[in-house]
Amino acid sequence: MLARMTETARITAEQFTTLIHETIPLSRVWAFEVLSLGYGTATLRIGFREEQLRAGGTINGPTLMTLADTALYAAVLSRVGFEPLAVTSDLSFKFLRKPAQAALLGEATLLRCGKRLAVGEVRIRSEGSDALVTHATGTYALP
Amino acid sequence: MLARMTETARITAEQFTTLIHETIPLSRVWAFEVLSLGYGTATLRIGFREEQLRAGGTINGPTLMTLADTALYAAVLSRVGFEPLAVTSDLSFKFLRKPAQAALLGEATLLRCGKRLAVGEVRIRSEGSDALVTHATGTYALP
Amino acid sequence: MLARMTETARITAEQFTTLIHETIPLSRVWAFEVLSLGYGTATLRIGFREEQLRAGGTINGPTLMTLADTALYAAVLSRVGFEPLAVTSDLSFKFLRKPAQAALLGEATLLRCGKRLAVGEVRIRSEGSDALVTHATGTYALP
Amino acid sequence: MLARMTETARITAEQFTTLIHETIPLSRVWAFEVLSLGYGTATLRIGFREEQLRAGGTINGPTLMTLADTALYAAVLSRVGFEPLAVTSDLSFKFLRKPAQAALLGEATLLRCGKRLAVGEVRIRSEGSDALVTHATGTYALP
Repeated sequence: MLARMTETARITAEQFTTLIHETIPLSRVWAFEVLSLGYGTATLRIGFREEQLRAGGTINGPTLMTLADTALYAAVLSRVGFEPLAVTSDLSFKFLRKPAQAALLGEATLLRCGKRLAVGEVRIRSEGSDALVTHATGTYALP
Repeated sequence: MLARMTETARITAEQFTTLIHETIPLSRVWAFEVLSLGYGTATLRIGFREEQLRAGGTINGPTLMTLADTALYAAVLSRVGFEPLAVTSDLSFKFLRKPAQAALLGEATLLRCGKRLAVGEVRIRSEGSDALVTHATGTYALP
Repeated sequence: MLARMTETARITAEQFTTLIHETIPLSRVWAFEVLSLGYGTATLRIGFREEQLRAGGTINGPTLMTLADTALYAAVLSRVGFEPLAVTSDLSFKFLRKPAQAALLGEATLLRCGKRLAVGEVRIRSEGSDALVTHATGTYALP
Repeated sequence: MLARMTETARITAEQFTTLIHETIPLSRVWAFEVLSLGYGTATLRIGFREEQLRAGGTINGPTLMTLADTALYAAVLSRVGFEPLAVTSDLSFKFLRKPAQAALLGEATLLRCGKRLAVGEVRIRSEGSDALVTHATGTYALP
């Protein structure tokens, strides 16, 4: 555990941002900001925009799911390094509270990183709030 | 079971399309097409566009997840009628195969529809193929 | 697809029953009966016993989860052959209806079987009823 | 949040143990021990026994799933009080590492407790180890 704590992320926020901008066209529109990257952890932020709304004036599920998926991708690459071809094999979401019309923060933490699979969880909150909006767990298959 | 089979959808494809266009701005961009609506079933199609790509030349997870979520929403409203405020309480995805650069079909079926919760599954395939690309299960909370 | 349909199960019901009896002590108590095994499909039955009850007079979750897990294990081995060390890497359950005090049938179908992972779903019903009691999806990691 | 931290569990370990012994016959065999109960949290322990084994000399999935389900049940009742008829509506498991032949601890924490649904997560470790063996999330429907 000590080794793990002192290790640093194997990809920088800039490398990750460039990667997703170059390979995932939509990420330029979504405009995620990488707030922090550790060894197996990542926190991403997405600003609020009207396009994220759904009936009821709350942020739609796809925005929450995209944030979770991307934050988990960043956490995986922070452990295994620059591996664009890591792909999601499963994702499970609990939508806990309707998010306010505000920026969202997604905090991903790996629970296990093996040779073939990396499993992690993501906690999403509205900026400035402690209440969980969404909880996700997911698995990435490593190439 | 007989009653269920002879009942018809409580919302039309036009009503559903208008609803999501008016309340979910992004749905105008995603451009889902409702191919069929039954009583507790819905099949939606989304055409292929470059914005859906990710590293590896395959369609990204958010496109698959948005299709599943929207198809399930349609299946729920086909049972309970025009209830825009039905909201997803959970969604679980298995990403089974990397989709080709082609249109996707999402076929949603309710497994149970109670007074408070509707649970269903969604099967996503590439147009013209039998192989499952993604399987999803999810729950909508009814207002 | 043709090849798949004409292939037969790579393990027999007797081999599977012997395997779980020898390596999973509890399976002798649970007393699953393998009703059918195809190439990637398996139907298991568990008789009703008082030990399966929970508050409310319905069958408890662990009984349903154990049936699903074991039926999926059988479906996996029906594709990959005698591989006792295949292990569950994830399982997701939707508990749809409270089961009556009756035998349960679990019908597992693989959705995809790759070299490293096999993904499938399980549908559980009370014997003699069409209504789904539980739906499960899960992944086995192959050795 | 302050109120939440200073509130105490609305059921005692003794009440919970009596409840499951009286209404879930199998729980007498599983012999869970409630190590702690807070307001929305619960830690349960299950000693190791040979019946829990599976092929490969590791503890079987049903033991892990039963521990998670029961710990989550305790955490739910610690918030809502003595409500035996709260029932699981979904459970999702990630099996992260093969557990050693040792006692298991399951630590449940509610992520949200509404009027109709309580959602929580459970972390399972082998006694004396920090490594996560299993992660679960689940929902209980409240009567």
